[in-house]
Amino acid sequence: MLKLYTFGPAANSMKPLLTVFEKGLDVEKNRLDPSKFEHHTDWFKAINPRGQVPALVDDGKVITESTVICEYLEDEYPTEVVLRPADSYGRAQMRVWTKWVDEYFCWCVSTIGWHRYIGKMVAGYSDAEFEEKVKAIPVVEQQVKWRRAREGFPQDILNEEMRKIAYSVRKLDDHLADHEWLVPGQYTLADICNFAIANGMQFGFAELVNKEATPHLVRWIEQINARPAVKAMFEQVELEKLGPRK
Amino acid sequence: MLKLYTFGPAANSMKPLLTVFEKGLDVEKNRLDPSKFEHHTDWFKAINPRGQVPALVDDGKVITESTVICEYLEDEYPTEVVLRPADSYGRAQMRVWTKWVDEYFCWCVSTIGWHRYIGKMVAGYSDAEFEEKVKAIPVVEQQVKWRRAREGFPQDILNEEMRKIAYSVRKLDDHLADHEWLVPGQYTLADICNFAIANGMQFGFAELVNKEATPHLVRWIEQINARPAVKAMFEQVELEKLGPRK
Repeated sequence: MLKLYTFGPAANSMKPLLTVFEKGLDVEKNRLDPSKFEHHTDWFKAINPRGQVPALVDDGKVITESTVICEYLEDEYPTEVVLRPADSYGRAQMRVWTKWVDEYFCWCVSTIGWHRYIGKMVAGYSDAEFEEKVKAIPVVEQQVKWRRAREGFPQDILNEEMRKIAYSVRKLDDHLADHEWLVPGQYTLADICNFAIANGMQFGFAELVNKEATPHLVRWIEQINARPAVKAMFEQVELEKLGPRK
Repeated sequence: MLKLYTFGPAANSMKPLLTVFEKGLDVEKNRLDPSKFEHHTDWFKAINPRGQVPALVDDGKVITESTVICEYLEDEYPTEVVLRPADSYGRAQMRVWTKWVDEYFCWCVSTIGWHRYIGKMVAGYSDAEFEEKVKAIPVVEQQVKWRRAREGFPQDILNEEMRKIAYSVRKLDDHLADHEWLVPGQYTLADICNFAIANGMQFGFAELVNKEATPHLVRWIEQINARPAVKAMFEQVELEKLGPRK
């Protein structure tokens, strides 16, 4: 039985979650609560020593990193629904897009998200409680990010991230003006991985992502939201909260 | 005919270069001169609008991003020499390592390299000449990096990058203590992509990478340098400077 550990259908966690819904794979879905630092508990660090979701466990083998998990599911479970081009050039184009999400797009959006929500999320902890939680984080850079989120990010960092977000949505809209999907002719992991970050920006970043400024990006977001697998994923969240915690 | 554009056998350029040598592929090798900003000229930006090497042209199709090019070569040219595990879990392990190079290891080493060499490399340009070159760079973040390299990186950035380098070589040495290759049992793109960054650190970062501090990492670097394809690659550089400039 496949076991998937996520924070639910948003950001990096959404990538493998949507992939398993699209492919119709039978997967035990485990949802961790970031506000309780569940991903930094000993039981989860026994699965992923870096203390990060998503993580996939397949018959005892642990696969980490959202994009790597998505390609693993394609490699290991060739279903009727294929989310990767058959030709080498199409695969390369797909990988340029998924790499761009991981190295650029997800970071700027994530920092603004942390700025808006993570500070509030941990406001209930005393300084001592918070520091104890932070000490359990295995990745030094993540410790820095949690502390910054609590203290408040410097304004110059926030400005720079907003500049990158504006550049990113422009880039996506320009490309989607001429293409139905990111890789021409096929819905692929490139769409899933970018959608995981872009979906919701029409609300959270409405001044940048809207029908006037980015009509093609909005069309593409709506197109993906209309897919049966995407609807089923969001519906199941409501019904079952995507499974047990552990 | 495959055409490969690189700066020669170092850093990201080495990844596809070594891959074609290992696979014995017949490739036209074009070497650009970074000190002349050849990668930001119009003729090269017509190939890669981001003005970055390496780039591969295969029958008119352009493939960019060093790691993506390596996987493309494996996908499109299944030679006797196979540099990617046959099983899905092995591929996932390989991709976690190549991703780590691209997102972490290459950046800290690169910044110190820029600090040491790029400032000197462009010292012969006047401020006006330098600014004209920088304006031709299509990626904003790269413009910032060139300017910083000329002015001098802030000390706190250099300290942080050195901390990351120390962490990186420790991580590699610890893993290689128990494994001949990064992915157990097979020489893969994980080794090639990490070697592209790690080779030479036994000289440039001798205080961190040496037989006492990191014996397993040094053993692995020597082991790769002893491969016929690696020797042939470095020899060809001396003989032919790896091809024409254009």
